[in-house]
Amino acid sequence: MKTYLECIPCFMQQALKAGKISAKDDKQIKHIFDEVGKIIPSFSMEYTPAEYGAEVYKIISEITGVKDPYKQIKDDSIKDAKKLIPYLKYVISKSDNRLLTAVRIAIAGNIIDFGVNETFSLKDDIEKILVQDFAISDFNYFKSAVKSAKTILYIGDNAGETVFDKLLIEELGNKKIIYVVREIPIINDAIYEDAVNSGLSEVSEIISSGVKAPGTILTQCNKEFLNLFKSSDLVISKGQGNYEGLSDVKRPLFFLLKAKCEVIAKDLNVKKNDIIIKGINLA
Amino acid sequence: MKTYLECIPCFMQQALKAGKISAKDDKQIKHIFDEVGKIIPSFSMEYTPAEYGAEVYKIISEITGVKDPYKQIKDDSIKDAKKLIPYLKYVISKSDNRLLTAVRIAIAGNIIDFGVNETFSLKDDIEKILVQDFAISDFNYFKSAVKSAKTILYIGDNAGETVFDKLLIEELGNKKIIYVVREIPIINDAIYEDAVNSGLSEVSEIISSGVKAPGTILTQCNKEFLNLFKSSDLVISKGQGNYEGLSDVKRPLFFLLKAKCEVIAKDLNVKKNDIIIKGINLA
Repeated sequence: MKTYLECIPCFMQQALKAGKISAKDDKQIKHIFDEVGKIIPSFSMEYTPAEYGAEVYKIISEITGVKDPYKQIKDDSIKDAKKLIPYLKYVISKSDNRLLTAVRIAIAGNIIDFGVNETFSLKDDIEKILVQDFAISDFNYFKSAVKSAKTILYIGDNAGETVFDKLLIEELGNKKIIYVVREIPIINDAIYEDAVNSGLSEVSEIISSGVKAPGTILTQCNKEFLNLFKSSDLVISKGQGNYEGLSDVKRPLFFLLKAKCEVIAKDLNVKKNDIIIKGINLA
Repeated sequence: MKTYLECIPCFMQQALKAGKISAKDDKQIKHIFDEVGKIIPSFSMEYTPAEYGAEVYKIISEITGVKDPYKQIKDDSIKDAKKLIPYLKYVISKSDNRLLTAVRIAIAGNIIDFGVNETFSLKDDIEKILVQDFAISDFNYFKSAVKSAKTILYIGDNAGETVFDKLLIEELGNKKIIYVVREIPIINDAIYEDAVNSGLSEVSEIISSGVKAPGTILTQCNKEFLNLFKSSDLVISKGQGNYEGLSDVKRPLFFLLKAKCEVIAKDLNVKKNDIIIKGINLA
C-alpha cells in the first residue's frame, strides 16, 4: 500500500504523541517537528506509510535519546490483556465456532495501538467486536487454509494484542507456528521480549522480521523471515502496519485487522472501524 | 496567545484541507506539504498561530495559483446564513433578553469556520447555542459597556458569520459601528466584499485591518485600524483567530467565541465546544 496524503499530517500527530511521552520538554518536541518537517520533501508517495513511520520514530528516538518510549505502556498493555484471559477463554469455550471467536478476539486485540490517533477501551471494544459483522470475511477460506497447513507464519503487530494472538494460536491446532515480531522498539509494536512476556514462546517459535519500521517491509526483512515467508503453508498478518507492507505481495495470505484510520479503510474499500478477514492470492 | 505544539500537526491538516479544495492534483498537495515542512524549523512558538496560518496559506496560494480558494464556500455560507435570518429575527423578537440572544446567535455564526478540523451543521449548532450555558460570561459588563459606548469597533471573523454579526449590531443601539475584515482572502475569513454581501454596509462602516493572517496581529495592522483600536469606546472581537492575536493586549475588549479546538479551550481554561463572552482589562 502506498502512502496517502492524509498520512502526512498523521505523522506529525504521531510525532507529537510520541514526543509527549519521551521528550524532556516542549523545546525537544519542537525540535522533533523541525526534523520531521525537513524530511517531508524527501518522502515519495510510492513508499508505504510504515517506511515513513520508521523515519519519524527514528528522529524521535535520536532527539530524545529514548530507545523504547512505549516500554511502560507496552508492559501495561500486556498486563491488562492478560487480566482478560480467563474471561476470553470462557467466551471461546462457550462459542459455537471457537476458531471464528478466537479470530474476533485477536482482531479486538489489534485496537491496542498507540500509533493511530484514537483512544480505546479494551473491554468495550472486545464486546463490540465479538458480535460485529465483518466488512470483508474470507473466514471459510481461512478455516480450510488453517486445516490443511502444517507450518504457519503469524506476523504480530502490537504488544498486548500479542496476548490475544496466543488465544488464536491455541485454536489453530497442532501446527508448527512461527510468531514474527519487529527488530527494534517502534511505537508499541511487539518486539521479542514483548512476545515472550505475552506467553507466545509457549505456543510458537518467536523470530524477528528484521524490520525497523512499524510494519513488514519485505525489502528490509532478514533472510530467516524471507525464507519462512516463502515456504510457510499459511501466512497470517495482523494489523495495519503489516497490511501496509504486504497488501501487494504475490503469495496467499490472510489479513486480520480492524480499520482504525480512514486511509486504511479507503485502501480496503471499507469503513473506518470495520473489521476484516481478508485473503489475497487464494487458489 | 502563543503557538501550542498541537498547532503544528493542525497546520498540516489545514494544508491538506485547503490543498484538496484548490490544488490541481495530489502532486501539488505533496508540494504544499514539502514547503510547509521546510518552514517549520523557522517557526518560533512565541508567535501566534494566526501568524503561521498566514505562512501556510501563502504557500498554498503560491503553489496552486488560486488566490481565494474558499470563494465559492464563502458565498454559499453567506447565502445559507441569510436563509436563517427571518427565523433568527423571530427568535430575537420573542426573547426576554434581545441583546444576549443576539450575542448567542453571533457566537453560533462563528462555527462557520473551514480552518478548524470539524464539520458543522449550522441550524443544529444554533439551536444548541441558543440554550447552551456560557463557560465564561461577562455579559453584564458587556451590556453596560455597550450602553455607554458611542463608538464600537467590531472585529469580524468568518464569511457567513458576518450575516449573524449584522443581527447583533442591530441590537447594539444607535452607535457608530466600524466592522473590521481581513486585507486579503485567507481560509474563509471575511474580506470587504463578503461583509458587503452580508449586508454589513447597511449597519456599519467596513474597514480592513490590513492583516493578511487569519486573525488580528497588531504588528501587521494598518494605521486606520490601529487608531480606531485605540480610540473606540468598545472593541468586540469575534472568533479564535482574533483571540489568538488580541488575547494579550492592554485595552479593554470583549471576546465572543466558541472554543472549537483543544488549544484555544486550553488557553481559555474551558472545554472544547464551550461558548464564552470574555472581557479583558475591564475597569
